[in-house]
Amino acid sequence: MKLRGYAGRLLYVDLSNSRVRVEDLNEEWARQFVGGSGLGAKFLYEMSDERTSPLAPENPLIFMTGPFTGTSVPLSGRHAVVCRSPLTGIFGESDVGGSWGANLKRAGFDGIIITGRSEKPVYLWLHDGRWEIRDASHLWGKDTYEIDPVLRGETHEKAVVSTIGQAGENLVPLAAILTDGKDARAAGRCGMGAVMGSKNLKAIVVYGTGNVSVHDPESVARLPKEFAPLINKNAENFRKYGTSGGLSAFEAMGTLPLQNWKFVGRWEESAEKINGFTMSETVLTGRYYCDACILGCGRKVKVEKGPYAGVDGAGPEYETLALLGSSCLVDDLEALCFANELCNRFGLDTISTGGAIAFGMEAYEKGLIDREDTGGIELRWGSAEALIGMIKMIAQKKGAGEILGKGVKKASEEIGKNSVEFAMHVKGLELPAHDPRGYNAGAVAFATSARGACHLSGLSHTFERVLKAPEIGIPEPLDRFKVEGKAALAAKTQNVMGMMDSLKLCKFILFGGVTLTDIVKWYRDVTGAEMTIEEFMKTGDRIFNLKRLYNVRLGISRKDDFLPFRSLTFKRIGKGLTPNLPPLGQMLGEYYEYRGWSEEGIPTPEKLRELGLSR
Amino acid sequence: MKLRGYAGRLLYVDLSNSRVRVEDLNEEWARQFVGGSGLGAKFLYEMSDERTSPLAPENPLIFMTGPFTGTSVPLSGRHAVVCRSPLTGIFGESDVGGSWGANLKRAGFDGIIITGRSEKPVYLWLHDGRWEIRDASHLWGKDTYEIDPVLRGETHEKAVVSTIGQAGENLVPLAAILTDGKDARAAGRCGMGAVMGSKNLKAIVVYGTGNVSVHDPESVARLPKEFAPLINKNAENFRKYGTSGGLSAFEAMGTLPLQNWKFVGRWEESAEKINGFTMSETVLTGRYYCDACILGCGRKVKVEKGPYAGVDGAGPEYETLALLGSSCLVDDLEALCFANELCNRFGLDTISTGGAIAFGMEAYEKGLIDREDTGGIELRWGSAEALIGMIKMIAQKKGAGEILGKGVKKASEEIGKNSVEFAMHVKGLELPAHDPRGYNAGAVAFATSARGACHLSGLSHTFERVLKAPEIGIPEPLDRFKVEGKAALAAKTQNVMGMMDSLKLCKFILFGGVTLTDIVKWYRDVTGAEMTIEEFMKTGDRIFNLKRLYNVRLGISRKDDFLPFRSLTFKRIGKGLTPNLPPLGQMLGEYYEYRGWSEEGIPTPEKLRELGLSR
Repeated sequence: MKLRGYAGRLLYVDLSNSRVRVEDLNEEWARQFVGGSGLGAKFLYEMSDERTSPLAPENPLIFMTGPFTGTSVPLSGRHAVVCRSPLTGIFGESDVGGSWGANLKRAGFDGIIITGRSEKPVYLWLHDGRWEIRDASHLWGKDTYEIDPVLRGETHEKAVVSTIGQAGENLVPLAAILTDGKDARAAGRCGMGAVMGSKNLKAIVVYGTGNVSVHDPESVARLPKEFAPLINKNAENFRKYGTSGGLSAFEAMGTLPLQNWKFVGRWEESAEKINGFTMSETVLTGRYYCDACILGCGRKVKVEKGPYAGVDGAGPEYETLALLGSSCLVDDLEALCFANELCNRFGLDTISTGGAIAFGMEAYEKGLIDREDTGGIELRWGSAEALIGMIKMIAQKKGAGEILGKGVKKASEEIGKNSVEFAMHVKGLELPAHDPRGYNAGAVAFATSARGACHLSGLSHTFERVLKAPEIGIPEPLDRFKVEGKAALAAKTQNVMGMMDSLKLCKFILFGGVTLTDIVKWYRDVTGAEMTIEEFMKTGDRIFNLKRLYNVRLGISRKDDFLPFRSLTFKRIGKGLTPNLPPLGQMLGEYYEYRGWSEEGIPTPEKLRELGLSR
Repeated sequence: MKLRGYAGRLLYVDLSNSRVRVEDLNEEWARQFVGGSGLGAKFLYEMSDERTSPLAPENPLIFMTGPFTGTSVPLSGRHAVVCRSPLTGIFGESDVGGSWGANLKRAGFDGIIITGRSEKPVYLWLHDGRWEIRDASHLWGKDTYEIDPVLRGETHEKAVVSTIGQAGENLVPLAAILTDGKDARAAGRCGMGAVMGSKNLKAIVVYGTGNVSVHDPESVARLPKEFAPLINKNAENFRKYGTSGGLSAFEAMGTLPLQNWKFVGRWEESAEKINGFTMSETVLTGRYYCDACILGCGRKVKVEKGPYAGVDGAGPEYETLALLGSSCLVDDLEALCFANELCNRFGLDTISTGGAIAFGMEAYEKGLIDREDTGGIELRWGSAEALIGMIKMIAQKKGAGEILGKGVKKASEEIGKNSVEFAMHVKGLELPAHDPRGYNAGAVAFATSARGACHLSGLSHTFERVLKAPEIGIPEPLDRFKVEGKAALAAKTQNVMGMMDSLKLCKFILFGGVTLTDIVKWYRDVTGAEMTIEEFMKTGDRIFNLKRLYNVRLGISRKDDFLPFRSLTFKRIGKGLTPNLPPLGQMLGEYYEYRGWSEEGIPTPEKLRELGLSR
């Protein structure tokens, strides 16, 4: 039986010769890898090899929706961007909300696969089954907020724009792809913006009005109403205070990054100044909902007075406030709103940018870079001025900004001396804002996730605090500091989240009380295919292993499944904090065993056969 | 009061212009840093800086005795070689037995400091207060066993020769300095042979007949007789079976390296074939005693028949059997005697050479190097032929031998791919044969010792098995797998061993039951200066911190205080083995705290002031 829930067609664009072709979706692959980043990984794996360099024309840049995208499944307004990362050199994916993916699907495409390099800047315009490659010379150099109304003017006022800013144009490895204009949702991580820039592709504009056909339309149509009360009840704070509602709680738990993860002590009053509660009482003007969202965690902010007046659009997320804010010891909320908007406009990942600047501040403190490198900026802890100045230098590839814009791994290699020691990354990806010293399963997930230090590929740390999943043997959240069972927890949750990123379902729905049992039912309602919890987990396992195989082909193995030295050796100390260090070695051994990988972290032939991944 | 026990003079040799001068020993320094590697470190620290590259003429190569050398203090026949290591790039020292140091002292010198580079090969001949720089062109290319009788023939039949073999001439970073001819004692670690080679200095020949004047001659003269019964009783097995008497016991404890430290399981029968008991029943012909030794752990062996016939001289030590043997899975004792002799003749450190070849075997197994690289050698686990062939290629800098001869750190950087993952070293120095997974304090000591992975700088692991030191709060050996107290144990024992290496006292005397109380009394008897146990420990602390300061100047900090990933993440499993992994992060934090170092592993100003090390 044919799978429903898919548009059934993929758009292949070769920008070197402006050739566009449409191909039917390979349904076998859709069953095996679902959609989103799972299916994207499959295309990437098949269409490239270890010789494909990230910024080469032949590196496929893959935009992929999932079966839920564009339907009325709650919180399904998402798509994935997949390609080999110019930041890390390995598997790259970015999963992003907004309404671009839903429009793509409604325009009749499950995904777009872009290869080649245009001679001059272009943008792509897709509209209900039709496509055009258009000149974008007049848009080159424009920021993502500027370009959005221009492109909607040139196409359709309801069209949605995914675009790069100047950072992507300049091939900055920290560059993101932004979508939804000044409501700014970012495919932030892994430098996807630089890949888009390398293809001379400024934007992809989509508008779709078709209907995504699903197996049981009535049942799917009922879902928002059916689940709204549950989600509203459980996740009310997400709507009220956004993702940064938890910032002070994380500060109190000792998992908020402070001063490039080296700060000893507490930061309570400062955290108070930048958290979601304060935001809701000061700069907040409204909430933003992705397509099919009933939660509304997105922030809209405005700064009307003072040095940062003019800010108007998406507000900073928790990750942004933590990496640009607390990790740089900046506690000026309006400044952080400004810095966030600057990153959005330039098209920069706020996590990696914040990580790079905090690294830069530590290097400056230690005398490894100086004012000559920074173009006169006093790159001091806590300086909002320095933060903002350095964001500009990164986007413009100037001085120290060019070095920091390569990410902390490469920056530390270039700067040398002791800087390797405070380069906080895994596999070249800067740490997100959940201290692995505060979550043992989170630590394993950071060390093993395909794209590097990633809190979303497993969301494992949340199962050490609030989430549970009784269907897969997690009846209650596990104690953060226990070691037992944490390797398995990380692996299980990675399998779950791989499915979420492939179905295209926002993970926050889990905080709303939706269960895996609900999700497999939704899968049946949308696609018509039955899926047990066991099959759900096995499919997640297959997707995770495929990403690993891609990385193994690039030389990744257990030597890379690491955490920064600081995370393994320096305890956080402060009133009420538990000075934990994750015993990574022990947990990693258990993790490989649970995964059926060799002691070197390579999937075994038996495991690959079991998952149908062997050739 | 003037310190006794010293010759009071140092010889400075500048080989660039053949200038030799004698200077009085700085008595203040002698009090602060004692002698041997402590005093050597002081000279190195003062005479060079971070711009002094290891093989540059200006890198001082320092041979240093201690106050006990040349006296009748039991087991004092030792000297130290100190310089910046071409293998690791950081602080380098080798401590060695034999009778060369005693002869140097009796010839009227506490030490020799060599700088510059001779235009042609030379050797140095020292004899009772006189010196000569002699042409060595006719000796260049000769191995250390060949050269010994030639040089004694040219000088004095009782002279003692310290020399490099072809490996040192070829500037192989694994090259050692050998002494005492075919009784072969090696200043093995850190590539000291390459530094000597870089100076075009083939050998230093010494003969001394003077008397080392001590404070209480009668008391010192009585020591051998007084302590012989105790030492004989407690350390009888050292005489009977040498250092490899413990090989099978270590196999049973799971601390013997097997297959480049990755082997899972037991290796009982093979261990049986190469251990000290088997040696004593087969190839052993006699025992070798260093100057003033009453223990005789040195082996003399002969192989008269079979493929390895011709072996005649020093037999393999435990470290040699473990690194060339078990770590390469070679269990043919006669082959190992041959391989050992080959290393001695070429002048190669057997620990690092074995480590490099085991690394090479794993690289070969993984297809990262092939037969073209090895010149046709099948570099397979367990192949004695391959082992011997690769030793030759390393000494001759041929093919894969040139790469492996740089040590596993650099070799893994050159070979790339996954090889970093099985490069078993700390700070560039290959692991000696005491698995840090089997000793938690040993693990900390490996991670923090100044020259890199070193079992002797702390000998900490032996305090987790047999040794104790009630005077400093170690009334009994500590359980190997306990974590509590291990950081302090490592630091304390490093301070003790730094003193042993400075006084120049063989550490095996501790196995003989000699106590720290005895040693401080001996110090008084020899030098005339009183020293409490507390002062003994503080002096050891000062010496350890000075070495650290030298390394800090070169960029060393906590980022380098690490263990190979395999040692932190893969448990040894096998009947009767405890599958331990050392929690390095936790212990390292405690270690720094105990040492009074910053969280980055840098001695604090307060600590330096306390030790009299601040400027």
